[in-house]
Amino acid sequence: MKFYHDGEALTEPRGFFCSGVHCDVKGKRDGKLDLGIIYSKKPCSVAGVFTTNDVRAAPVRYCESLMKDQNAAYHAIIANSGNANACTGLQGEIDTKKMATEVARHLKLHSKEVLVCSTGRIGEPLPMSRITAGIFDAADDIKNEYDGAQAFQEAILTSDTCTKSCSAKIEASIGEITVGGVVKGAGMIEPNMATMLAFLTTDISATNSELQSILTDAVNKSFNRITIDGDMSTNDSVLIMANGNSGIELSEESKKFQNDFADAVDAVCAELARKCVSDGEKVTKFVKMRVIGAKTENDAEKVARCIANSLLVKTSWYGSDPNWGRIIDAAGYAKVGMKFDEVDLDYNEVPALQKGEPIVGNKSQWKEIVSDKEFTITLNLNQGKSTGEIWTNDLSEEYVNFNKSE
Amino acid sequence: MKFYHDGEALTEPRGFFCSGVHCDVKGKRDGKLDLGIIYSKKPCSVAGVFTTNDVRAAPVRYCESLMKDQNAAYHAIIANSGNANACTGLQGEIDTKKMATEVARHLKLHSKEVLVCSTGRIGEPLPMSRITAGIFDAADDIKNEYDGAQAFQEAILTSDTCTKSCSAKIEASIGEITVGGVVKGAGMIEPNMATMLAFLTTDISATNSELQSILTDAVNKSFNRITIDGDMSTNDSVLIMANGNSGIELSEESKKFQNDFADAVDAVCAELARKCVSDGEKVTKFVKMRVIGAKTENDAEKVARCIANSLLVKTSWYGSDPNWGRIIDAAGYAKVGMKFDEVDLDYNEVPALQKGEPIVGNKSQWKEIVSDKEFTITLNLNQGKSTGEIWTNDLSEEYVNFNKSE
Repeated sequence: MKFYHDGEALTEPRGFFCSGVHCDVKGKRDGKLDLGIIYSKKPCSVAGVFTTNDVRAAPVRYCESLMKDQNAAYHAIIANSGNANACTGLQGEIDTKKMATEVARHLKLHSKEVLVCSTGRIGEPLPMSRITAGIFDAADDIKNEYDGAQAFQEAILTSDTCTKSCSAKIEASIGEITVGGVVKGAGMIEPNMATMLAFLTTDISATNSELQSILTDAVNKSFNRITIDGDMSTNDSVLIMANGNSGIELSEESKKFQNDFADAVDAVCAELARKCVSDGEKVTKFVKMRVIGAKTENDAEKVARCIANSLLVKTSWYGSDPNWGRIIDAAGYAKVGMKFDEVDLDYNEVPALQKGEPIVGNKSQWKEIVSDKEFTITLNLNQGKSTGEIWTNDLSEEYVNFNKSE
Repeated sequence: MKFYHDGEALTEPRGFFCSGVHCDVKGKRDGKLDLGIIYSKKPCSVAGVFTTNDVRAAPVRYCESLMKDQNAAYHAIIANSGNANACTGLQGEIDTKKMATEVARHLKLHSKEVLVCSTGRIGEPLPMSRITAGIFDAADDIKNEYDGAQAFQEAILTSDTCTKSCSAKIEASIGEITVGGVVKGAGMIEPNMATMLAFLTTDISATNSELQSILTDAVNKSFNRITIDGDMSTNDSVLIMANGNSGIELSEESKKFQNDFADAVDAVCAELARKCVSDGEKVTKFVKMRVIGAKTENDAEKVARCIANSLLVKTSWYGSDPNWGRIIDAAGYAKVGMKFDEVDLDYNEVPALQKGEPIVGNKSQWKEIVSDKEFTITLNLNQGKSTGEIWTNDLSEEYVNFNKSE
């Protein structure tokens, strides 16, 4: 597998076109790109994973409903930032439908061939006259085959500080397959994703259900592992489009290639998830919190999440303080029957606790590790053989300042 | 009931003596009082509620173990701040025992008549030579019947900004009964209490089990409702001592008086819990988050906790931003089957949402309410008749700054 950590990822698989325009969703006239389209002339199979929040935004419900038809094919995704179209009642549903219809009208598609995603503030109606004007511009760029992969990446950002993309290439029997992906994240990232939109494109040919099983696995190993502030949004969506432009059918390839393809989707999702955490709102550190030696995977994940979401733990990381007491305390309220005098704790490879005994001689090393921008903490419960891993970050004063109003 | 919002609460019930001294638990020579004793000449019945964290500190396990004897009576509680004696292994157990023994030796008690509480940093052994010197001083003050209620209150504080006490007086058949209480709280306050120590004294005569049932009820309606940062500590303890100095037997009084007594304990616990949240680390607002119309109490509490613990909600309160979208989002990930178009939301008595529709005309009023230091938010799920209430606060930049190292 050849892996590229950034680039114009979405248009690297053959046959995809993107655009991104400014239509002033927020009414701030700041010139920020805030609406974009991903398009393929060939119809695409699509798979998706969506937020499980009780309150799912209108576009999420729209996509879920369209995708119930296992044989449906799609040509385009329209996405906007600045307004989540969540908690917007019947009007929200009408507006979502209208976005799809407008894209379909300009690109000569059926509206059911267009998926819709939104992200941004909750509870305000979309400014539909500006949105439809934006769709006109964005569709125009698509018709002119304008190279808008970078513009699309920018258009979906909210409080992100940078665009986030990557791609992977693998060899098939008669050529090469590419998987490209972009993500927007920042605040409100947690269990089962969060105001997070991720889009993947690939030029393989596969059925909706083949794609779905590969995507679901990949999301479980990546986006579902990340937590920034414990909040889960109304709009989280991960979508993959496969247009078959390569002429390569997934089901007709070797088992090895099929595994390689799943690995490529995994790798793209994992890298996008990592980027998402590192670019969390006002984040200074990326931390892999591993729990091993648990009785069940569920226990391991529960403990890792309690630690990763503890404000006291996160603020201590921000202060480069290797405060293992706070980690153990947070692990303790996961209530999986942890026994302190049985646990081991490592900062990277350096033991901090062995069977509950602090290895005090290593203290200066812990301090150094926690001062780094990226480190791994491993807690061994010594209760069993299951493991869990959550990727998280620290909590800074700037996070609070940034989020105190919108 | 006569209610006093502060004062020398612990010694207001007859027959109790307190002391508080500086023994330099932290080795900082800052002169802060950090060790204290509550004492009654008459033996006391005692009830207690303790943290349910998997990792319970040595003193918690010590008290739990002593109190298994339903007929045991006690004369004293020794408490220190600055060091939690948690995650300290066998040495921690030995040190706890030693604290009880030292108190017993000076006050001519059996060590089993002395309960022990600690709060402070996790994972460091107690400085026992300084602790035993402190016990000598504190016991000396008790022997001299020195009036140390205020000193005791100060001695248990950690990052609290002020002492927190209150008391209630009720009429019995042949006189008056007093219930006094003090609390220390600040960071790490959440489900089922947190680095929170609360002590109540009363001059009624009651059995351990009578007291236990009253205290458990009172804690469920107060301390178990509060959350500051979602962390639950290794050391939380609420203890009540009843010395019978009034000569009034609870079981021999009227049903009405028995209810009045339970109400007095409830009122003291509720006021201490409220003070605890208001004095949370770097807190600027006190918020009652009520959820009504839920299918079950469990659902109601789950939703209220999700909202109360959401960083995005807490930071918006800090910014005086009545961001109902974040509240609804957090309620949605409690996953109790909430339907957005059925919910009502009020800021104090002012409707913000009715059946999911924003009452936009009230917007300036919401803003005003959220700018206040204390307000109530009521979310009606309109699913059933159960309610839940969590008391919480905002999240400030100062909180992060304060907790980034210890």
